[in-house]
Amino acid sequence: MSKPLPLLTSTTPVERADAARNREALLHAANELIEGCSVEGVTMDAVAARAGVGKGTVFRRFGSREGLMASLLDHRETVWQAAVISGPPPLGPGAPPLDRLLSFGESRMLLHLEQAALIEAAGRTWGDNEAVRGFLNLHVRVLLAELGVEGDLTYLATALLAPLAVPVLRQQLHSGMTQEQMHAGWAELVRRVVGPAPA
Amino acid sequence: MSKPLPLLTSTTPVERADAARNREALLHAANELIEGCSVEGVTMDAVAARAGVGKGTVFRRFGSREGLMASLLDHRETVWQAAVISGPPPLGPGAPPLDRLLSFGESRMLLHLEQAALIEAAGRTWGDNEAVRGFLNLHVRVLLAELGVEGDLTYLATALLAPLAVPVLRQQLHSGMTQEQMHAGWAELVRRVVGPAPA
Repeated sequence: MSKPLPLLTSTTPVERADAARNREALLHAANELIEGCSVEGVTMDAVAARAGVGKGTVFRRFGSREGLMASLLDHRETVWQAAVISGPPPLGPGAPPLDRLLSFGESRMLLHLEQAALIEAAGRTWGDNEAVRGFLNLHVRVLLAELGVEGDLTYLATALLAPLAVPVLRQQLHSGMTQEQMHAGWAELVRRVVGPAPA
Repeated sequence: MSKPLPLLTSTTPVERADAARNREALLHAANELIEGCSVEGVTMDAVAARAGVGKGTVFRRFGSREGLMASLLDHRETVWQAAVISGPPPLGPGAPPLDRLLSFGESRMLLHLEQAALIEAAGRTWGDNEAVRGFLNLHVRVLLAELGVEGDLTYLATALLAPLAVPVLRQQLHSGMTQEQMHAGWAELVRRVVGPAPA
């Protein structure tokens, strides 16, 4: 996507154009720091230095390091949701619903694994993001309905999403499970929940 | 059970008999305070006053209010695990495995709902309890095997346990889901994961 629209996760009030540019530059600098070293390396000082602004500007914009991390997550979430809504299949529209669901799970798991450190650094600011949970639940519910699954689809969607949560993924990695096993396990779970195709 | 043995959750080194009695008395006082009012009412002062000891004794024994909460959870967990291992069916042994699994989920969900405030007050001390996770996963895995489920039973057990986690339950309650819907939803999930009985 060239320019994803702000979706459900946007918590930013309307900004003046220069403030928005400033904000983008700071998020860009923070992303470069993460790619260059690690989440730990993203201090308010380092972001200010890299973006060529004063440290006070970074604090005024994001409030705290946690706030900066939450903004970074918000940005990545927006890009990811845009890929689900309007990106290429099978994550985006156009593929059969089971392929979309499996692609959704694999992609979301990868996103969470990559961002586990960021999510931890963002603390509660991120964990309580109801808008994100709402988007994920709705998407899974719609695909389950397309697959002809009957019953309490809200519950089943929550149940399919629960093992993709960052703490669960971290526990699985910690206990020696590989990412391949986690992908395969989730796919097996989905196939069991979806059941055989309706006659 | 009159006197459950300390099971997998015990983190207490061997205590002298008087220290153990002292500890029991303090946990008993804390439990009475919870039943009498709420988790918020359980301060170190209140526990000391109720047990008739100095506040210093409570601090020496549990380190902090979080430590006290973790000990309370530990105690309740031990009682619950004893019920799973050797209590009456269908939670305990002697019932068909599907009945045991459904009873396990319902009972665990209730325990978590009752103890959500306690678990929050205990903070990370409790959330990271690997021994409890290990016990739960093993129990579900064994029942799935008895039911003839094939595949990655460790993953499937984790997936069945994930929607019973306290944060998920809290979100469901917050979104207006009733406890009956949560029980019925989990039972539906289990039936789908277990599939039809083997021929």
